[in-house]
This record gives sequence, structure tokens and C-alpha cells, in this order.
Amino acid sequence: MAVTEAERSAMLRAIEIASNGPRGLNPQVGAVILSADGELLAEGWHGGAGTPHAEIEALSALTPEQTHGATAVVTLEPCNHTGRTGPCALALIDAGISRVVFALDDPGAISSGGAARLRAAGVDVASGEQADAARLLMADWLVVQHLGRPHITVKWAQSLDGRAAASDGTSQWITGPAARADVHRRRADADAIIVGTGTVLADDPALTARDGDARYPTQPVPVVIGSRETPSDAALRQHPHAPLFYRTHDLTAVVDNLRERGIQRVFVEGGPTLASAFIAAGLADTVLAYIAPVLLGGDRLALTDVGVGTIVDARRLQVDEWMPLGDDMLAIAHPIVESKGH
Amino acid sequence: MAVTEAERSAMLRAIEIASNGPRGLNPQVGAVILSADGELLAEGWHGGAGTPHAEIEALSALTPEQTHGATAVVTLEPCNHTGRTGPCALALIDAGISRVVFALDDPGAISSGGAARLRAAGVDVASGEQADAARLLMADWLVVQHLGRPHITVKWAQSLDGRAAASDGTSQWITGPAARADVHRRRADADAIIVGTGTVLADDPALTARDGDARYPTQPVPVVIGSRETPSDAALRQHPHAPLFYRTHDLTAVVDNLRERGIQRVFVEGGPTLASAFIAAGLADTVLAYIAPVLLGGDRLALTDVGVGTIVDARRLQVDEWMPLGDDMLAIAHPIVESKGH
Ligand SMILES: NC(=O)c1ccc[n+]([C@@H]2O[C@H](COP(=O)([O-])OP(=O)(O)OC[C@H]3O[C@@H](n4cnc5c(N)ncnc54)[C@H](OP(=O)(O)O)[C@@H]3O)[C@@H](O)[C@H]2O)c1
Ligand SMILES: NC(=O)c1ccc[n+]([C@@H]2O[C@H](COP(=O)([O-])OP(=O)(O)OC[C@H]3O[C@@H](n4cnc5c(N)ncnc54)[C@H](OP(=O)(O)O)[C@@H]3O)[C@@H](O)[C@H]2O)c1
Repeated sequence: MAVTEAERSAMLRAIEIASNGPRGLNPQVGAVILSADGELLAEGWHGGAGTPHAEIEALSALTPEQTHGATAVVTLEPCNHTGRTGPCALALIDAGISRVVFALDDPGAISSGGAARLRAAGVDVASGEQADAARLLMADWLVVQHLGRPHITVKWAQSLDGRAAASDGTSQWITGPAARADVHRRRADADAIIVGTGTVLADDPALTARDGDARYPTQPVPVVIGSRETPSDAALRQHPHAPLFYRTHDLTAVVDNLRERGIQRVFVEGGPTLASAFIAAGLADTVLAYIAPVLLGGDRLALTDVGVGTIVDARRLQVDEWMPLGDDMLAIAHPIVESKGH
Repeated sequence: MAVTEAERSAMLRAIEIASNGPRGLNPQVGAVILSADGELLAEGWHGGAGTPHAEIEALSALTPEQTHGATAVVTLEPCNHTGRTGPCALALIDAGISRVVFALDDPGAISSGGAARLRAAGVDVASGEQADAARLLMADWLVVQHLGRPHITVKWAQSLDGRAAASDGTSQWITGPAARADVHRRRADADAIIVGTGTVLADDPALTARDGDARYPTQPVPVVIGSRETPSDAALRQHPHAPLFYRTHDLTAVVDNLRERGIQRVFVEGGPTLASAFIAAGLADTVLAYIAPVLLGGDRLALTDVGVGTIVDARRLQVDEWMPLGDDMLAIAHPIVESKGH
């Protein structure tokens, strides 16, 4: 059966209410239950890991009489695996739902198959309704499903000749105000901002995302990696989010733990040692190099060792955009993953 | 008196024949002598240092009867200083020339003043005719007069992170074909191409300007700086021009000597040590950084020490153009000469 006008409106609403739920380990999902004649009976959204899925939340407000023969409109394919509440597909079947309209297929290997299960139980199923809008809503979560870890942006600022500072360590400011404002905007889009202990000890950064003097409404969680102690009076301890400290050099372990905490996008701000370690480990999806039109020379390099011994192993990038920012140039790039013939 | 149609045509011709003379220590100058009724009597150009100036060359073809009352049309203000042939202004006066039309004022401190001398002798003088075209013709020579030395372009190719090669020294090719073709085009525009002994010994470059397999019609003179010996079978010894060897690290002395040889534009192609030394010495008018979208890390830096100890002494550049070349980016820049408050 074609999607009705009432179902279309319900999907719009489902997408809207989905974002009432938190970004995190689980996707943001919204559900609306319609009566057989298209009347809105109930709505629900997913409140995050450990809370009921959106469909269950919506169903819970209704009596069996109401749900019998009703239509469920959901942003994501109802799940088919037994979590805390059992598969949603089963719950919908048990409630006597006769039709399900959903936007996006469930990308999860374990949780998918809900649509097939519904159909097998005689439920009428329509998929793909407003899929693009739903994909946009869940973009970061989908990337995490695809990568198996949070999306990682590695950022650094450098002189044209690849230095992070002059020989004596002075570096303020290599890049200009437009470049610095751009960094803060992008920080605000991240769930976590990562630095090494070297940067904490050298610069005592606040790690907030600021628009001039004001803070952006969303702030990334500050993360420090390295064995050295962060001083008790460090500026990042005043951050609106409690900082996370990882006393390790095992970046994969850090990233896995961040994923478990529901972090979807991380922003690695350096310094040179940590940025290089992320690149060397292949843990960089986006590279942001802010290039200032100055020459510094000397040994304070913006990147140190990225694990390249010989030219054929160079870490090739695809530059997606060269973006002028005042006098500076931002290279927005992603590593090209080559299949090596050897 | 306003410039006549015949004089205008004569200036076009003078500019045209000027380039019969060689680029070099002296400017390229052309002269045409017109009779009182605008008939072309003679023409001449300057054949280079040690040969007669263009006006003298043109006059020499004529009898005193012909030159008396005639008009001289010259691309450059007739000189006022005694070289091998005495001041041209005086020669024109002695020949009875009654009118002189020239394009550009003589920028030389010693040689200028010709127009005033002519006027004082009662000669009718008109200046500025087709000055822009004449300036274009003599652009490089004028720059040498202004700088007091040849114009210097320092070029290097680098990875995004400022490396010239991978850790093991391999570097072919960091940049792509479009960038390499651009380098060859620019080589062909230079009078000399300079490398350090390090590059000669490591790469054995031919130092020719090539368009694919073919050589450009003009070729820069190859120049090697450094105390080490260039092998007798080095590729650059096959260059169409005899190479110049400077067994010194005194770049100012090299550049002065090149000027005396009539070199107007030099192209410094590295390597890292020599390019950095030119920048550190303030001997860079144009900087060309070819940036390849690859990360290399390690210690093979495209620039080494450019004489910057602390950030306020950074060598700031004005980027005149960011020019995409295939996957690479060329930064065309010039150093900003700051007047320091200390
Ligand atoms: N240009 C820029 O964009 C930029 C950005 C930030 C900072 N900086 C500058 O960078 C300088 C600090 O440099 P840095 O390189 O020392 O700072 P860093 O990269 O912030 O910290 C390096 C430290 O990170 C820890 N670490 C964690 N995981 C690691 C791994 N997998 N491999 C290696 N180390 C790991 C180690 O700390 P432990 O020894 O404690 O274990 C290491 O010493 C400062 O001067 C700062 O101003 C520049
Ligand atoms: N990325 C690029 O664009 C590029 C371009 C060219 C070369 N390269 C690479 O660069 C490497 C060679 O590097 P390099 O730095 O040894 O080469 P280099 O800069 O060509 O040569 C360095 C030598 O230049 C001499 N020199 C002359 N004047 C000097 C001065 N004022 N200060 C210091 N030295 C002066 C010294 O030679 P003496 O000791 O003999 O006196 C010095 O050892 C090769 O691997 C080559 O492939 C890269």
C-alpha cells in the first residue's frame, strides 16, 4: 500500500521528536502510532541506551484496543534482537499493529531483520519513507556503525613549511582570527576534543568551543591522553563537561572506550606527537591542516613521525576543499586508503 | 609639440627592434631616426654591454646632412653619462637632432639627466610615448635596477607537512605531472637556475627546461653553489649552456656576480639547505611552494633553518595566488618586508 498523507505527516513528526533523545551509543529514533483512520494516537522517542525504544515508548501509552489494527510510523526499521525489552518487531506484532512505515533500514548486523519478521507475521510494511531526512538525523550514528568507532578529525595549524612553532617554542599566533574562529566552530560540532599531555602541560588549554568570548551552546567533552598528570589547577578542569583522562598510548582502546560512552565525533587537536600517532595508526577520517603564510624553519614540527619510511608508503590525501580563511588556507582532506599490491 | 602619427609608428618599430639586442646587463633599447617630414632614415638597437647604444647605432648610418634637423625616437631616455662612446644626449646634440621622443625615463642614477641636457641644448623633447609597452619590454632589467641584483625566485616541492622526501630519502614523485610541468615552464622564463652541490650529488639533475621530451627554446644557465666537486660525468655538464660553479657559501657574492654576467632572473631550485639559506639571507623575491596532498613525517625537511628564532621574527609571506595544479597546490608568495620596531 502506498504511504498515505497522514503517514507522511506522522513521519515528519517522528523525525522531529527523535532528536528529543540524546546523541549517543544508540541512534535517535522517533515513532508515531496512527489509528486505522489516520488519527495520531501516541508518540515516543528513544531516550538513550538502557531506556525503551521509541516504538515501545509509544505503544506503552495505549491500550490493546487502541493498538490493534493501528499503524506504527518509525524513523528506523524496528529492531529484531532481544535487548532489555525484547525485539520491537515482536512487540508491534503482539500489540496487533497491522501496518508499519519506516524510513531507514537498520544497519546493525544483529538488530536488523525486523521488517522481514513483521512481514512474516502478516504485517503490511513500507520502507524508505523520508529516508534522506532520517539519514541526516542519524548521520553521525550511522558513521559510527560503518566505521565501528567514532569519526575522527585530526586538526593542526602549521606554517607553510610545516612547523607548529618557532625554535624557541613561541607560536602565538601562527594562524589568524578567521582560522581560529573556524576551529572553534568545528570544536562545537564534535562530541569530544582530544589532546595529549604535552599540549596540556605546555599550553594549559581550556578546550571549550568559543564564539568570541561566548561559549557555543554545545561543548565537546575534553579528553587527555598520556601518562603524565594533569595539574589540579589546569584550565580544562573548569570545562562544563568533566574531562576524561586516559593514561595510555593505546589510541584504539581510547577510541573504543569513547564509542562506548556514546561519543560519535572526536576532534583531535594535537599536539604534534598525538596528531602524528593518530595518523600513523590510521585513525584519521578527516584531516584539517590550517596553513599560515609564514616560514619558520627549525625543529618544532607540526607533525613528527606518521609511520612512513619510504615514498610508496606516503599517506596520500584527497583534498576535498582548499578553504581560504583570512590570510590562511585550510586544507580539508581525507586519507586515501590504498590497497597495497605487496 | 604633440607626438605625430609618424613618431608613434616609429616608437612601435623601436620597441620591436629593441628585442634584437640581448637580455643582459644593459637594457634592450631601440631607436629610429625620422627626417623632418617623418620619413624613416635609420634604425638601431643596443647589442649589449661594450657595443654602441641604440641611438649611436642609428646615427652611424647617416650623414651629418641627414641627421641635421631630424627626430630621434628612442625607447629609453638617451643617457647622460660617459661610457665607451660618450653620452648619447651629447651625440644627438652634436648630430644636430632637433627633436627627441622617448618612452621611459632612465632609472639609472648616473646615466639619467639626458632629457634635461637635450632641452638645455634647445632640443625639443617629448617623453612617455608608449611607456607601458617599453616598460614591459625592459621589465626584468628595471627590476634589477630597482633591487640592485637579479630577481630571485626560490622554489621547492613539499608534502603538506613540509617534507621534501620520505625518511629513506625517496621522493619521486611527491608532486604530480601538472606541478612538474609548471616548474619547467617557469625554469624557461629564468636566465639562471641555481642548485646546491647537495642536490647535484644526490639527484644528478639535467637543469634543462623541458616541455615533455622537448626542450624549451630558451634555457636557463645552470649554476651550482658549494665547495664540493661536481662529477665530470654530471648530467648538467651536458646542458646547452656552460654551467657556472661557485665554490662559496656567500650568496650575495654569487648573486652580484650573476648580475655582472647580465642575469636578470634566477630560479633557485634547492635543495633544502640552499633554499633555506637564500630565504634566511633575505634573497627571495618570489617563493613558490608546490604542496602535494601527502603526509610524510620524518626528518627530510623541505626547508631547514631560515634564521627564525622566535615567532615575532617569522618570515611572513603575502600569498599572491593559491594555484591548484592537478592534485597539488602551488602557493605563489612574496616575503613581507617588515620594518621592525626594535
Ligand atoms: N600547531 C598546532 O596545531 C598545535 C596544537 C596543539 C599543541 N601544539 C603545541 O605542541 C606542543 C606540545 O607537543 P607534544 O607533541 O609534546 O604534545 P602532545 O602531542 O599533546 O602530547 C604528547 C604526549 O601525548 C602522550 N601520548 C598519548 N598517546 C600517545 C601515543 N600513541 N604516542 C605518543 N604519545 C602519546 C604522551 O604523553 P605521556 O608522556 O604523558 O604518556 C606524549 O608525550 C606545545 O608546544 C603546543 O603548543 C601545537
Ligand atoms: N623538494 C625539493 O623541491 C627539492 C629540490 C632539490 C633537491 N631536493 C632534495 O634535497 C636533497 C639534497 O639536500 P641538500 O640540502 O643537501 O642540497 P642542497 O641545498 O642542494 O645543497 C646543500 C649544499 O649547498 C652548499 N651551499 C652553498 N651555499 C650555501 C649556504 N649559503 N649555506 C649552506 N650551504 C650552502 C653546501 O655545499 P658544500 O658542502 O659543497 O659547500 C651545502 O652542503 C636531495 O635529496 C634532493 O633530492 C629536494
